[in-house]
Amino acid sequence: MLEALKEEVFKANLDLVKHGLVIFTWGNASAIDRSKGLFVIKPSGVDYDIMKPSDMVVCDMNGNVVDGTLKPSSDMPTHLYLYQHFKEIGGVVHTHSTYATAWAQAGVGIPNIGTTHADYFAQDIPCTRQMNEEEVFGAYERDTGKVIIERFNGIKPLEVPGVLVHNHGPFSWGNDVHNAVHNAVVMEQVAKMASISLSVNPALKMNPLLIKKHYERKHGKNAYYGQ
Amino acid sequence: MLEALKEEVFKANLDLVKHGLVIFTWGNASAIDRSKGLFVIKPSGVDYDIMKPSDMVVCDMNGNVVDGTLKPSSDMPTHLYLYQHFKEIGGVVHTHSTYATAWAQAGVGIPNIGTTHADYFAQDIPCTRQMNEEEVFGAYERDTGKVIIERFNGIKPLEVPGVLVHNHGPFSWGNDVHNAVHNAVVMEQVAKMASISLSVNPALKMNPLLIKKHYERKHGKNAYYGQ
Amino acid sequence: MLEALKEEVFKANLDLVKHGLVIFTWGNASAIDRSKGLFVIKPSGVDYDIMKPSDMVVCDMNGNVVDGTLKPSSDMPTHLYLYQHFKEIGGVVHTHSTYATAWAQAGVGIPNIGTTHADYFAQDIPCTRQMNEEEVFGAYERDTGKVIIERFNGIKPLEVPGVLVHNHGPFSWGNDVHNAVHNAVVMEQVAKMASISLSVNPALKMNPLLIKKHYERKHGKNAYYGQ
Amino acid sequence: MLEALKEEVFKANLDLVKHGLVIFTWGNASAIDRSKGLFVIKPSGVDYDIMKPSDMVVCDMNGNVVDGTLKPSSDMPTHLYLYQHFKEIGGVVHTHSTYATAWAQAGVGIPNIGTTHADYFAQDIPCTRQMNEEEVFGAYERDTGKVIIERFNGIKPLEVPGVLVHNHGPFSWGNDVHNAVHNAVVMEQVAKMASISLSVNPALKMNPLLIKKHYERKHGKNAYYGQ
Repeated sequence: MLEALKEEVFKANLDLVKHGLVIFTWGNASAIDRSKGLFVIKPSGVDYDIMKPSDMVVCDMNGNVVDGTLKPSSDMPTHLYLYQHFKEIGGVVHTHSTYATAWAQAGVGIPNIGTTHADYFAQDIPCTRQMNEEEVFGAYERDTGKVIIERFNGIKPLEVPGVLVHNHGPFSWGNDVHNAVHNAVVMEQVAKMASISLSVNPALKMNPLLIKKHYERKHGKNAYYGQ
Repeated sequence: MLEALKEEVFKANLDLVKHGLVIFTWGNASAIDRSKGLFVIKPSGVDYDIMKPSDMVVCDMNGNVVDGTLKPSSDMPTHLYLYQHFKEIGGVVHTHSTYATAWAQAGVGIPNIGTTHADYFAQDIPCTRQMNEEEVFGAYERDTGKVIIERFNGIKPLEVPGVLVHNHGPFSWGNDVHNAVHNAVVMEQVAKMASISLSVNPALKMNPLLIKKHYERKHGKNAYYGQ
Repeated sequence: MLEALKEEVFKANLDLVKHGLVIFTWGNASAIDRSKGLFVIKPSGVDYDIMKPSDMVVCDMNGNVVDGTLKPSSDMPTHLYLYQHFKEIGGVVHTHSTYATAWAQAGVGIPNIGTTHADYFAQDIPCTRQMNEEEVFGAYERDTGKVIIERFNGIKPLEVPGVLVHNHGPFSWGNDVHNAVHNAVVMEQVAKMASISLSVNPALKMNPLLIKKHYERKHGKNAYYGQ
Repeated sequence: MLEALKEEVFKANLDLVKHGLVIFTWGNASAIDRSKGLFVIKPSGVDYDIMKPSDMVVCDMNGNVVDGTLKPSSDMPTHLYLYQHFKEIGGVVHTHSTYATAWAQAGVGIPNIGTTHADYFAQDIPCTRQMNEEEVFGAYERDTGKVIIERFNGIKPLEVPGVLVHNHGPFSWGNDVHNAVHNAVVMEQVAKMASISLSVNPALKMNPLLIKKHYERKHGKNAYYGQ
């Protein structure tokens, strides 16, 4: 079932390792087939060395496994919640990549202070609020999705394709899982550069014109970046 | 004698290099066979390039070499002391990995400020007190173990599988040596992320609910992480 | 057309990846043939894995494509402007390399605080002013070149072969594109070292004699470095 | 002439690259044959990719080339001065390695704040004073050696096998060139760890007992580290 998408999700998970975003099994990628109402996600806690495309798990929109012999990633309910509420996204990635996670631990959004950031994110990368007792000890992984959606009130997910979950780490997404991986790499890099920039000059000022310009020249109506 | 365990300890020592935790010969791993009352440890100061499984040294619970032609790691008495007092551990690792050692040099425990940390450690990673003259110029390596055990008064070693020795570096352990290596990698990574987080936001606040939640979902009675 | 120069520019672009200065397609290198009034530049947004020498684009001094089937890098007008105003340069490189970009985001020039820097740059690496609305929403890429040239009033480009564009990133140049790549590597390294130096000692003082001496011994009339 | 020593010096220079201490040609290693009063040093500005053992240059104790077709490293007079005044050393290494150079730029010695440092250096790694006009514009490279020797008044070179030259970078040495390379790696690592430690806890305190103990257990009369 969904063999091509399994292959794509499998490759996306390995790409996270290749890009240095994942240690051990600390990451997961998924992709959705909107027409079928099914999504494919990495199994929980399986070593990347022995993981195969056929190990990918297929879930429906109620979070039930419909294909696969392994348990899905424990973060599956977060992926599901994002697919349910961000109708325009096709893939989701979660990592504990070093710098993006450090910002999440700091509880601070990553400020849009350069064109590298502005090329991909139309504003700061937001950080969610802290979760309360009911959320943490109730449906924790689902409500991790809930605080993300709450934070994105008024923000278009494809204009800001990532978030920091407070004291936890980054989630990113895109129109497909390949793009979600790409955005995870960008988040890690802009997180790293922002921490260095602020150590060099805590009083730095971003030119707001560049935020609009760089995002538009790549993603706007008259985009002229790429072939 | 204990050929399988020698192989395991040999591999664990190489894994420390593979994970970037060890420069030159600055690290050592050991594993214990509780039923026989013997443990296997890396030899002292042997280059990893030429080290063989048969170079591993077998010691008894008095610290006497019972098999092997090389001297054991000079840190052997610390390993022994940990095996004597932490009955539930099966492997011990010591490294001078960059960030964990930097925190040990700073004399400060690594604060539990994110879910990556909480997934493995039920609280902060503690730092031992400074050692006194008698300890340093007496049975130094044994008493390195002693100050660790002293610091763990009231802490379960498998719930906090690592420590920083003041002005020195990290020790980690686990139910076996593979797991001790795993925890050494985790310590280095959380040490790195914590130093970045604090530089970004010195006033950061960890959500204490997440500490309990993440540790429990992986290690508690109703753990649901992994297969 | 210009096959040898295409090969050279192709190789220079790959060298940026090899030196760790470029993630994805975030960089571009070009070289000029002054006798023909033509320059060769990387195509826009093409993956390095599949890029070939024949994909390089040839432009004339009005910025028109005269050879090649792909669109040139969107930064082409900046390269062109630099070639028009810095008559002595033969190659240009732009990257978003981590530390140099972090300084650009900080809006601060990289201070000449060591002999590594002084070996290549006769003074600080300057940072341009912020661009205004007309520049950003008009001929943005051309005017990126304009603010660089404005900043270099009174500075010889081959004595200071690089610049930080405010909130954006580094450009470097040289007598050929190989040299421009070399200077991009130097900028990244001195940016990294300067950020560490300042964190260790914010009150550090550079010996101005060394700036003159090191630059002169490598680039002066009586240079005696190299063969 | 001195073919075995040339081979050794050649290998030492490549080891600097392998250990990540050298970018381009920014480093040099040499070794002395005390019985012949000759030393072998890397040629100036030759790419490591094409460098051969036979390219190494042999100099006498007046700094004259006695064998070899290439010019010696421009830092040759510093190596010579060190060999003349540190009679117990057999090899010298100079690099611009990232963290050690950053401390040199900061103009601050690397404090002995951990056992990793104490295992190799009996005290802080000192930083030289700034050089004056006569020194910089006179016999600059020789006087770089002179300020090192001046700084080591009262310090035994094999007990502190390295130094930071103010606003420049590290020099290290040892009983042979292999050992000098080893000490260059150690300097870079302790420089890195010290900068992190101080960012985590600027008020950190080193236990002075450990400085004596760790140095002694590896280098003292009753050393018991290694085989």
